Amino acid sequence: MELIIHTDTLKKALYIVGRVISANPSIPVLSGVKLEGVKESLIVTGGDSDISIIKTIDLKESPQEEIVEQGTLVVPIKYFHELIKRMPNNSLVTIKKLYKKVQITCGDIETTLSGLNEEDYPAVPEKPPGDGISIKGSLLTEMIKETQFAAAKSDTRAVLTGVNWNFKEEELTMIATNSQRLALRKASLKTNLTGTFILPIKTLTELVHSIDKHQFINMYPSESMFTFQSEDLILYSRLISGTYPDINRIIPKDSATEVVVKKGRLLEGIERANLLAAQWKNNNVTLSMNMDGKIRLSSSTSEVGQIQERLEPVDVQGERNLKVSFDGKFFAEALKSIQEELVSLSFGGSMRPITIKPYNKTSTMHLISPVRASS
Amino acid sequence: MELIIHTDTLKKALYIVGRVISANPSIPVLSGVKLEGVKESLIVTGGDSDISIIKTIDLKESPQEEIVEQGTLVVPIKYFHELIKRMPNNSLVTIKKLYKKVQITCGDIETTLSGLNEEDYPAVPEKPPGDGISIKGSLLTEMIKETQFAAAKSDTRAVLTGVNWNFKEEELTMIATNSQRLALRKASLKTNLTGTFILPIKTLTELVHSIDKHQFINMYPSESMFTFQSEDLILYSRLISGTYPDINRIIPKDSATEVVVKKGRLLEGIERANLLAAQWKNNNVTLSMNMDGKIRLSSSTSEVGQIQERLEPVDVQGERNLKVSFDGKFFAEALKSIQEELVSLSFGGSMRPITIKPYNKTSTMHLISPVRASS
Repeated sequence: MELIIHTDTLKKALYIVGRVISANPSIPVLSGVKLEGVKESLIVTGGDSDISIIKTIDLKESPQEEIVEQGTLVVPIKYFHELIKRMPNNSLVTIKKLYKKVQITCGDIETTLSGLNEEDYPAVPEKPPGDGISIKGSLLTEMIKETQFAAAKSDTRAVLTGVNWNFKEEELTMIATNSQRLALRKASLKTNLTGTFILPIKTLTELVHSIDKHQFINMYPSESMFTFQSEDLILYSRLISGTYPDINRIIPKDSATEVVVKKGRLLEGIERANLLAAQWKNNNVTLSMNMDGKIRLSSSTSEVGQIQERLEPVDVQGERNLKVSFDGKFFAEALKSIQEELVSLSFGGSMRPITIKPYNKTSTMHLISPVRASS
Repeated sequence: MELIIHTDTLKKALYIVGRVISANPSIPVLSGVKLEGVKESLIVTGGDSDISIIKTIDLKESPQEEIVEQGTLVVPIKYFHELIKRMPNNSLVTIKKLYKKVQITCGDIETTLSGLNEEDYPAVPEKPPGDGISIKGSLLTEMIKETQFAAAKSDTRAVLTGVNWNFKEEELTMIATNSQRLALRKASLKTNLTGTFILPIKTLTELVHSIDKHQFINMYPSESMFTFQSEDLILYSRLISGTYPDINRIIPKDSATEVVVKKGRLLEGIERANLLAAQWKNNNVTLSMNMDGKIRLSSSTSEVGQIQERLEPVDVQGERNLKVSFDGKFFAEALKSIQEELVSLSFGGSMRPITIKPYNKTSTMHLISPVRASS
């Protein structure tokens, strides 16, 4: 195995593949990155037991880059990546397998690293057959960003640490919840697939990091694995097994009060209130309204102090007497995930969840559970 | 005590003063920031037992800002600073002492924080008499940045954790060393002072953070304290007591080889070599030269690999047979602190310190001790 490649091209590939390689993998060879020279392409593979990324670099177009000798090598990602990062830009680097070592040469810089045994490297899974379900990279990224933050950081129910992807009637719905808040985002998709899959957060993070937002991504769901494929990249991920809770019963069907408010102004107020709510287990912030139709946000911490502010909604419909306490941190995170400038809030009473939606848009919804008021 | 001030002005002051306020100070009141309204100025004070900063804000020029009622209050910096940070820009905030509480009002935002007892706040030291020694903010900043990194992070000899400032014959020399490397920077100053002072790193960091580089700073050294004063800021610092080692005996008087080299190229090479030197206690990197007059940098870690590269010096004078090992991390830090593009290296032999200077400049000097080669 011997190849010549631009340092910049290799840096970009390692930046994507390197992140999924674990420092302490279940089998030692997985601490390495696999470089495979096949015809006029370099295939860069990295992964652990949960996720693998395969990036293909086409060397045909560049007269200086080439696979000098076909073959495979595996080299520890830690040193290899750091070394390539520090190689000068706009230069050619030669990478050559020499028995158990890997020689890396770039101009007057000569390096040798110990290799790993490429025969120990596990085979990557087979891509499921068919054309897959096509989705624009930018839409996929948007949907993930609007939901993944709401998943449980840790939970005895493993399913809650992932995001539920539900395919039904030419629609994909992503749902994440930690039982105190929930984020939901749906979009139309050309597929007749019906099925539900729970994707680990790490997969979604790496997906957002590695895909080209301008490209279309093909998705291949299967029983235990989800595969994403773009022009030059394949990402395999295991799925979280288990049954995701049925969220339909917790989504409020009606509301007593509907308020439209400027998102930026509301977020600033919640973040100020959060300052004095941090001593409470649930970051208790209280939102109230009386007949004047103005929103009041308040929080307090005995010994430290209290904060209260008023803000003028854009519109109020329904019942004006309103008081509900909630976790201000969860509320702020929901608002931050919304791109739009106006949001609609729905209230069903002090012990009913609050619904947050971008104004005039039904594809995104956030639910925040009420908490017992601290005072 | 009551005042009206622009949120932006107060944010800027707290950004400087807030950093020197400790979360767990020796006396509880020092966890607060002191606001003092005197005539048409607000004086903002913060500090701990080692360092105090006093920032004066002149409210005369602004028609909307004013001291409504003269007086003093102390409020916990943690909540106050976070709260003011989150107040809208371009707004006026009213701060009012109400018995043991502090009321903070900004438009529709009303906050009350518990205050601290201003009578417990320790008196700030008296500024020593006289005009002080004047130095341009930019020069002071430059001198600090070129030396402070070389001080010991921790050492049984407390003096080595500071930077030695030596005034003599209208010159200020700053010296920092951790015994394995040394940084020295001198500059001419209009003063007939002769004396030596050891300044804590924290003081130097806060000084660089708080002073206006375009202003002149007046310095007032005294036996146990050093005072810095600019137009609107005073910084008091305790000094480190003890005798700083005499460094004159370790500065090489002659050299066998003088090399001029491009700093950027050398730094890149050292940083690559450092990658494979990190397992050694002293990050052993070896620099060598033979009759071809090229510099070779190398390092190796058994099990992992080795690196070697050549680089062409701009000029070589003297003995060409040369081999010396040193701590590559210290060498890289010295190079990074140098602004100039060319550096001069002087070598006296494999067991003599290496001298690094910006080319054709004698006011800055770095020394790196040799280490025993790892192979």
